[in-house]
Amino acid sequence: MKAIQQVAFGLESLQLKEIPTPTPAPHEVLVKIEAASLNYLDVALATGTYSKELPLPRIPTSDGAGVVAAVGDKVSQWKTGDRVMIQYNQLWQNGQATAATDQIRTGVSTPGLLAEYAVIPEYALVRTPVNLSSVEAATLPVAGVTAWTGLMSFAGIKAGQTVLTQGTGGVSLFAMQIALAAGARVIATSSSPEKLKKLQALGAHEVIDYKKNPDWHEEVKRITGGAGVNATLDIAGAPTILNSVKSVGYNGFVGLVGFIGGAQLPLDLFSIVGNYIRLQGYSVGSVQSFRELAAAVAINNIHPVIDSVFPLSKAQEAFRHMGSGSYFGKVVIEIS
Amino acid sequence: MKAIQQVAFGLESLQLKEIPTPTPAPHEVLVKIEAASLNYLDVALATGTYSKELPLPRIPTSDGAGVVAAVGDKVSQWKTGDRVMIQYNQLWQNGQATAATDQIRTGVSTPGLLAEYAVIPEYALVRTPVNLSSVEAATLPVAGVTAWTGLMSFAGIKAGQTVLTQGTGGVSLFAMQIALAAGARVIATSSSPEKLKKLQALGAHEVIDYKKNPDWHEEVKRITGGAGVNATLDIAGAPTILNSVKSVGYNGFVGLVGFIGGAQLPLDLFSIVGNYIRLQGYSVGSVQSFRELAAAVAINNIHPVIDSVFPLSKAQEAFRHMGSGSYFGKVVIEIS
Amino acid sequence: MKAIQQVAFGLESLQLKEIPTPTPAPHEVLVKIEAASLNYLDVALATGTYSKELPLPRIPTSDGAGVVAAVGDKVSQWKTGDRVMIQYNQLWQNGQATAATDQIRTGVSTPGLLAEYAVIPEYALVRTPVNLSSVEAATLPVAGVTAWTGLMSFAGIKAGQTVLTQGTGGVSLFAMQIALAAGARVIATSSSPEKLKKLQALGAHEVIDYKKNPDWHEEVKRITGGAGVNATLDIAGAPTILNSVKSVGYNGFVGLVGFIGGAQLPLDLFSIVGNYIRLQGYSVGSVQSFRELAAAVAINNIHPVIDSVFPLSKAQEAFRHMGSGSYFGKVVIEIS
Amino acid sequence: MKAIQQVAFGLESLQLKEIPTPTPAPHEVLVKIEAASLNYLDVALATGTYSKELPLPRIPTSDGAGVVAAVGDKVSQWKTGDRVMIQYNQLWQNGQATAATDQIRTGVSTPGLLAEYAVIPEYALVRTPVNLSSVEAATLPVAGVTAWTGLMSFAGIKAGQTVLTQGTGGVSLFAMQIALAAGARVIATSSSPEKLKKLQALGAHEVIDYKKNPDWHEEVKRITGGAGVNATLDIAGAPTILNSVKSVGYNGFVGLVGFIGGAQLPLDLFSIVGNYIRLQGYSVGSVQSFRELAAAVAINNIHPVIDSVFPLSKAQEAFRHMGSGSYFGKVVIEIS
Repeated sequence: MKAIQQVAFGLESLQLKEIPTPTPAPHEVLVKIEAASLNYLDVALATGTYSKELPLPRIPTSDGAGVVAAVGDKVSQWKTGDRVMIQYNQLWQNGQATAATDQIRTGVSTPGLLAEYAVIPEYALVRTPVNLSSVEAATLPVAGVTAWTGLMSFAGIKAGQTVLTQGTGGVSLFAMQIALAAGARVIATSSSPEKLKKLQALGAHEVIDYKKNPDWHEEVKRITGGAGVNATLDIAGAPTILNSVKSVGYNGFVGLVGFIGGAQLPLDLFSIVGNYIRLQGYSVGSVQSFRELAAAVAINNIHPVIDSVFPLSKAQEAFRHMGSGSYFGKVVIEIS
Repeated sequence: MKAIQQVAFGLESLQLKEIPTPTPAPHEVLVKIEAASLNYLDVALATGTYSKELPLPRIPTSDGAGVVAAVGDKVSQWKTGDRVMIQYNQLWQNGQATAATDQIRTGVSTPGLLAEYAVIPEYALVRTPVNLSSVEAATLPVAGVTAWTGLMSFAGIKAGQTVLTQGTGGVSLFAMQIALAAGARVIATSSSPEKLKKLQALGAHEVIDYKKNPDWHEEVKRITGGAGVNATLDIAGAPTILNSVKSVGYNGFVGLVGFIGGAQLPLDLFSIVGNYIRLQGYSVGSVQSFRELAAAVAINNIHPVIDSVFPLSKAQEAFRHMGSGSYFGKVVIEIS
Repeated sequence: MKAIQQVAFGLESLQLKEIPTPTPAPHEVLVKIEAASLNYLDVALATGTYSKELPLPRIPTSDGAGVVAAVGDKVSQWKTGDRVMIQYNQLWQNGQATAATDQIRTGVSTPGLLAEYAVIPEYALVRTPVNLSSVEAATLPVAGVTAWTGLMSFAGIKAGQTVLTQGTGGVSLFAMQIALAAGARVIATSSSPEKLKKLQALGAHEVIDYKKNPDWHEEVKRITGGAGVNATLDIAGAPTILNSVKSVGYNGFVGLVGFIGGAQLPLDLFSIVGNYIRLQGYSVGSVQSFRELAAAVAINNIHPVIDSVFPLSKAQEAFRHMGSGSYFGKVVIEIS
Repeated sequence: MKAIQQVAFGLESLQLKEIPTPTPAPHEVLVKIEAASLNYLDVALATGTYSKELPLPRIPTSDGAGVVAAVGDKVSQWKTGDRVMIQYNQLWQNGQATAATDQIRTGVSTPGLLAEYAVIPEYALVRTPVNLSSVEAATLPVAGVTAWTGLMSFAGIKAGQTVLTQGTGGVSLFAMQIALAAGARVIATSSSPEKLKKLQALGAHEVIDYKKNPDWHEEVKRITGGAGVNATLDIAGAPTILNSVKSVGYNGFVGLVGFIGGAQLPLDLFSIVGNYIRLQGYSVGSVQSFRELAAAVAINNIHPVIDSVFPLSKAQEAFRHMGSGSYFGKVVIEIS
């Protein structure tokens, strides 16, 4: 099969190769991958920024969707032709994560999905919502599930509450779409008038230009009549966390999910204590959360926001585009 | 002021009278009531079916909305002209109900709202959503809050889950609208093709004619591929509870909120245990729940379904209509 | 190996046989069973009262503990000599039960534990607390986990709350011990002065003779100053459920776990609604709950109450004793 | 009545004065204060370290207990002679805190309790547990409720879980006693062998000398077999928060409650995300939490740890002792 292999750190070392197609063990499924999508972590892993200890060569990317091509002989819940998405934290089925459920992460501790085929344990697949193409579905496993886990599983956002979304990356756009589907009010930030218009077109009730308003939490407070929002997911880490904390109100929830801007958080205790704020670290989510997200996507006919679709042969360009930070939505690589 | 007074049990004893307008104490608010709405309990109380021990004469009805006409001298959070709705469980502010918070119920242990004015403690008012008229807002305090408490506070319905609503009374229609706003799938039942069409027009994803399908839980199971729904509010009690239990799936929620059809519930243990079902009794909800509902109504532009609007002078007709059970939505009495 | 086989329905058909010792598959563990304990369900299954459709011959009983004798070649988390207990709902690892996690129940859909050896999937074992013998540990998987799930996972009992336990069967005695360990006040019922003394010796703060007080809920209300208890687990079903509901107070929890006295529950809606009561059906619990119980047993040095210990050769007597209902604690069969 | 008045910032300005005894309004209660206890905040407020904007003169301290001396004419739930403790967040009755419930804090926005009498709203009193003297009871409202809210309301500590307590101040010793009552395992830290022995005598399962082990989180990890604890309350802020975060395990809870060592928290995102850690800021707790604590104290016969008792005339010495940080338990001022 064709696959992208990373043979050394650096994006130029992502090479299209012909390698053997894997075979499913008795409880495994062979998935014909139709699309994979990129996350910031993929770039950090590929460049070696995140860690130099990842064994090479490796097939990159954690996010993908496709069609069941074959099943191991003990698999009964899937059959050839089923449209499926691949779970990121493969062993995290339900309830809370544990050290044990965190052992296997698709594309990190297993071969990634930038290949024509991948072998996946039967318990680490979720059925693709009927309203999504595989290109769309490939964006859900990491970014979509991260947004769902934060807003729905942890923060328990309800209709009528207010959610702040930060920027136009995958997690934030899913957070907006999920919050809107759940009947919440959405305040969205971005850095350009053009992107702000797109956010409004997608349903954001209010938008804030964070370039023009470096103290954007003050805008958030103004828009909410001083109350602050109920929840936000902080994507950038160091440069945004103080504003994130000041943007939420009483019993506010700040999901700690990203480190694009740095992982050292200079927090102020008084802001957190005074508003009974919860800071919650976590990583993506369980199969159960993914199934819940898939149901919500289907019932509410949510279509993920796709920034761009690259062919497998242009994987390096896709990674570079992802690394540039100039996207609006998900960067997808189609594998046909 | 004009008010309807119940001087004896029986709907014919609901009489329009001129009585003194009350005066607010330091922490009370005088509300000009613009509309009141009826619940089944109002009919049961007026006819004496529920209890013969209610002290008479009394002003009936628990549900209402209007405008602040005057405030006691220690009231700071409300001012003349504020549009408000009246809380039913007046002392239940937040968290769980207690014996103490259950002491005061509007229209039961206090004078009701079928009058031009009512005096209400400052903590038992909720601001009317900007998108609602007072006729609409008058339907929220009991039926709306009951639906919200069941689906959102207790069952924690999430986008993508499925809710079953039973019939076309106020609680069930609010349950449908709340569930839809929260991104849930709704299966609604009714007894006539005409009403089923209206339910679909309001957004119900699926409808079931329970007259044609006395074993309507089987239809629910069929529609959900055997899984059952996540939650339902049982309105009628004795005649429906068995089907309600059989309609929900694993970890399903059955809210026990109504007794129109009788209060003796012939439950089968195996159905409840086998599906890990929760049966939850409760009565209306807290001020906090009411505020959450009001926010959801505003953000999602929910308009309560009004069956009919009667003038104060036709209060007896309104009660008779309510007693007939042939309504689709809320029966309101406008007081101008 | 030696095993008890049920060759027909009826306790006289429980026969001691020599059958082949099973071999563990790659992800399975061979456990040398040292003790098994009986539950009411075992008797109902053996007599055919529960269902006549169970395939025969079968090895009965669901509850057991022992020592790892061998492991399949892909097992890494267990090794020979590890002391283990066997999970009942084998696939229910964490979070909420689902139809899928309910597929495999030890001793019902798998061979039971009344045998010298059993083969168990590696994920369906829990480490035996250091303070327990295998005879003691064999009582935890069904009765102990049922009590834990009800009081801790569902009801969330806290120190200072009050729990009512009903009778002297395994679930109720575990409920008492768990509630005491959690700092709760315990009111316990039984039918004889002698058993009531034993309950007090075990730590019950208050006891009620339900023979002398057929309306024992009134005693519960008196003892709690009218407030009622926070939680109870109803064991007998039909004959006790009304009193159970009347024994709990505001926001009270009634776990529906047993059917010894009949499964038709004649409930009264007003008692349930008036006190915001939750009735929760469920069956045993997850591996995660079992691990939590095991930790609590170790930290608090809880020793299960053993009624009697029979040798494998006297299995019929053990079942008869269990069926008689005259036990105080768990009936165990030691297999040596 | 006699009272301590703070006439300027600085402990030397705490002066014993004769001032008018207050009179209860209709819904208020006059409490004869028998004892008040000190918290670090009292010292910070008295010295002006916390804020120079507090209006002077003021009566200091937030924590107290006594006996009802008289009741306003609309008070029905309290009568002369009732033993009571005073709630800190007076308006926070139940559920979550809001901006509104945070308006009134005893001793901060109201006169404090270092006086022979205080007038308190009827809803801001909790009955003193029968097993406590007023000297003991005076220690509960702030330190006891803070520990309860963190461990029980937020973290939901269960029997068998592990709690880390930090040092020998009031909150930490209550956290230990509450955790032990709830059946948890306790690891306690302190700075001297003598204090560690006292902690063991109070029931701590394990102790760590944080002076000898500046990287005490490594000891915590070692003791817990690498797993980390389920919850800890961070008291000192800046100097301890990093170790606190590294001491908890998967889904661990770090309550942010103190700022003795500084309010700038230098957090590392990866530790928080990798272990799904929750950081929760909050301040003391609700009346409902206080009632729950009082019930737990009574049922489990918990006696607060008293470091020292000063007479009212030695209030300055008491504050100086509190400021020295060399206490083991609560510093109380008895008012007779």
